[in-house]
Amino acid sequence: MNLIPSKTHDNAPRINSVMAEVRKRISARILAPGSKLPSVRAFAKTMLVSTSTVVEAYERLMAEGTIHSRPGSGFYVAAALAPLSLAEIGPKLDHAVDPFWVSRLALDGQSGMIKPGCGWMPPSWMPEEAIRRAMRSVARADTDLLTDYGTPLGLLPLRKLLSRRLSENGVHAAPEHIMLMDSGTHAIDLLCRFLLEPGQTVLVDDPCYFNFHALLRAHRVKIIGVPYTPSGPDVALFEEALNEHKPRLYITNSAIHNPTGAVLSPVTAHRVLMLAERAGLTIIEDDIFADFENQKAPRLAAFDGLSRVVQIGSFSKTLSASIRCGYIAVPQPWIEPLTDMKIATSFSGNQLCEAVVLAALKDGSYRRHIETVKVRLSRARVETTSRLRALGITPWIEPQAGIFLWCILPEGVDAAKVARHALLKHVVLAPGNIFSQSYAALTHMRFNVSQCDDPKMMEVLSEAIDTARSIL
Amino acid sequence: MNLIPSKTHDNAPRINSVMAEVRKRISARILAPGSKLPSVRAFAKTMLVSTSTVVEAYERLMAEGTIHSRPGSGFYVAAALAPLSLAEIGPKLDHAVDPFWVSRLALDGQSGMIKPGCGWMPPSWMPEEAIRRAMRSVARADTDLLTDYGTPLGLLPLRKLLSRRLSENGVHAAPEHIMLMDSGTHAIDLLCRFLLEPGQTVLVDDPCYFNFHALLRAHRVKIIGVPYTPSGPDVALFEEALNEHKPRLYITNSAIHNPTGAVLSPVTAHRVLMLAERAGLTIIEDDIFADFENQKAPRLAAFDGLSRVVQIGSFSKTLSASIRCGYIAVPQPWIEPLTDMKIATSFSGNQLCEAVVLAALKDGSYRRHIETVKVRLSRARVETTSRLRALGITPWIEPQAGIFLWCILPEGVDAAKVARHALLKHVVLAPGNIFSQSYAALTHMRFNVSQCDDPKMMEVLSEAIDTARSIL
Repeated sequence: MNLIPSKTHDNAPRINSVMAEVRKRISARILAPGSKLPSVRAFAKTMLVSTSTVVEAYERLMAEGTIHSRPGSGFYVAAALAPLSLAEIGPKLDHAVDPFWVSRLALDGQSGMIKPGCGWMPPSWMPEEAIRRAMRSVARADTDLLTDYGTPLGLLPLRKLLSRRLSENGVHAAPEHIMLMDSGTHAIDLLCRFLLEPGQTVLVDDPCYFNFHALLRAHRVKIIGVPYTPSGPDVALFEEALNEHKPRLYITNSAIHNPTGAVLSPVTAHRVLMLAERAGLTIIEDDIFADFENQKAPRLAAFDGLSRVVQIGSFSKTLSASIRCGYIAVPQPWIEPLTDMKIATSFSGNQLCEAVVLAALKDGSYRRHIETVKVRLSRARVETTSRLRALGITPWIEPQAGIFLWCILPEGVDAAKVARHALLKHVVLAPGNIFSQSYAALTHMRFNVSQCDDPKMMEVLSEAIDTARSIL
Repeated sequence: MNLIPSKTHDNAPRINSVMAEVRKRISARILAPGSKLPSVRAFAKTMLVSTSTVVEAYERLMAEGTIHSRPGSGFYVAAALAPLSLAEIGPKLDHAVDPFWVSRLALDGQSGMIKPGCGWMPPSWMPEEAIRRAMRSVARADTDLLTDYGTPLGLLPLRKLLSRRLSENGVHAAPEHIMLMDSGTHAIDLLCRFLLEPGQTVLVDDPCYFNFHALLRAHRVKIIGVPYTPSGPDVALFEEALNEHKPRLYITNSAIHNPTGAVLSPVTAHRVLMLAERAGLTIIEDDIFADFENQKAPRLAAFDGLSRVVQIGSFSKTLSASIRCGYIAVPQPWIEPLTDMKIATSFSGNQLCEAVVLAALKDGSYRRHIETVKVRLSRARVETTSRLRALGITPWIEPQAGIFLWCILPEGVDAAKVARHALLKHVVLAPGNIFSQSYAALTHMRFNVSQCDDPKMMEVLSEAIDTARSIL
């Protein structure tokens, strides 16, 4: 991966060749650790370049720690380095099949892995050009923006834009009730710190996004799953859980639910909020898939008016996961204490990323990108569904939007076994039980339709199912 | 602040004027909320521009939420927005004088504030051009880097560069024992989560960086301060604290200590490590000011070989605070569980910022910038010291490097009172007790020499001292 292309500066090739020559001499032990480099003037003659080229090359070699200077004496090869390993940390094949299993595999995975189990779209589906334009645009921004700490709430123009976008979904949050965060996960984490005491109980959907389990474990709370139906949490069991466990908090995805792709119905939303009101329950609504919607679904935060429901979101799924930026929209009285907690734990927000996200969202092409992606996803959903059905894999529901298909494997096939077999063939799958607090999803699997177009994937899946079945 | 300059695209002025005209009509109620916009064709005629210009302008107005489209019907003004307040969150004048006081003031402060109490250099001292070059360079990087999640440990080339830089300070950490974080604060926060249980005890220096207090409070631990001497923590009292309080952790700045500017002596470093060894104490060494050093000071992590000392750092002070990127160098066995905890609480690192930092550090100009800043700081330190002495303010020591002067006010003058008076004149000071766990620094004050060159500052300070003295 070519991370940082060389500067377009005309002199770059010459500087690079001087640097390469020095490195070559060091690795060939022509220049031993601690030995003196040729003087700038002498080396400029040797290399047929200007002295300023050698100075710049030496500066860069110093910047990377290969050489150092002694004032008035010249340049020297750095002392022997600590033993370096060049190995990337490889996929954790031996990790237990738990919430971290898929995360580690999907995040660590070398290139060449096929990842129908991961929770995001491939880079080729992302709005690359808009991001490049945004980067170039921010490269010309005011010095303060590029160098100084951001304000605790985050860049005001982005909070204003978010305020308008949220109001399109019926969530009315003034910019001063929106706090920018490094990511959706960071947003939930800060809220958990603010709301929870160790030992308290938190409700999640069963199944739910697996990292909710991991995050809540880090907060040392008790996690109770409420079965999720195609129209939201099972209201009767939700009520039972409230009565029995007296939870402090409920964390959920509305709009497009992860992993099921289900959508909250208005009647369920209303009932959940009434129950929450009666029980004094706070709700975190994770709206991270909002932009994938084809039709607006009800939001708990919209019905509730940001009173006991907090909404969070980010741009990792639709704009870029490399540019970390999420947000929290909260009831007004929470802003002050949350700000103090953000300062204590992060000191300041990520102003540079906020500026890049702002520039990219303001670019007219973002909406076009989303429209294109939605069409592409619809097509991929239809195709993936039909290929999965051919293997005896049935979708739990047919989602209207989003990237996920929550599926049931052929009878009796253990999804974790299938995932382990597939991994040996470099395919990362997401077995159902990592999403299920009660381990009730043994034969379920989540597929990301944007990551399912490699024909090898279905082949490997088919083999893995056969293998898992043969050792029932 | 002009955040995002308009695109250099030739058509930009025309697109902007179409957008401006639409906005004008909306605010003049010529176009009411919900009403239909002129068709693209008609408006192109009106505005004497091409239809594609109007399409692009409408797209951007949609992107910012000002208008929306109904397929097959046309474009409409968005419904009335939630009440927006344009007010920036202003400085919290009524906040208690506690660890958050200076943070909030320094971070929230409108332009026009003078900030000798803040912990960073003014934007004009930062390497603006290197950052702009780095941004443009990353704008040309591979798609994956711009759009995809980063690996849990962070960008390998930056970890390799850090490994080499750390070894210059005698700290030998292989790239796979370095984890990139969003900031130094984020690094300490993750380590605290990993190392601490609520109710345990943590040692800090007295005085120390005030946000350590805030961060540790968020972790619900007991904080014990050990008096700091000009050569490090008071070893006898450090030993006493170990015996009496059985702390789990000690957090300190080596190299250039915040707020005192003092430097750890080799003998103190050695004794602290022996005591830590005997007591089973873990140490977090915050090396954030490393690049300001004129002479290398001892590092606990170097003496200890990353066994019970963890080192953290960031680039907020010397490169940019807007680009969030810090690191942790840890003992090998910690990497796996720390990675899981990072995934649970952040999911992934900030790959874009990591790439920008890497490009900026590899730019030969970074070292030149640091050399220039060090000369500038030396000069500012001498000048500020002499101006402060003229007001009867005495430095506790004369630091060899860094941005801070830890000073003693004229006898009996309460630094918090001085700070409150100065704030009324838009000068943010850092009174001693926000750094002191035992509130033993009533008459102390920290000055940032890079923020002291405005003549108004000394005037306001002089007045504020007189006022504070008159109401003794």
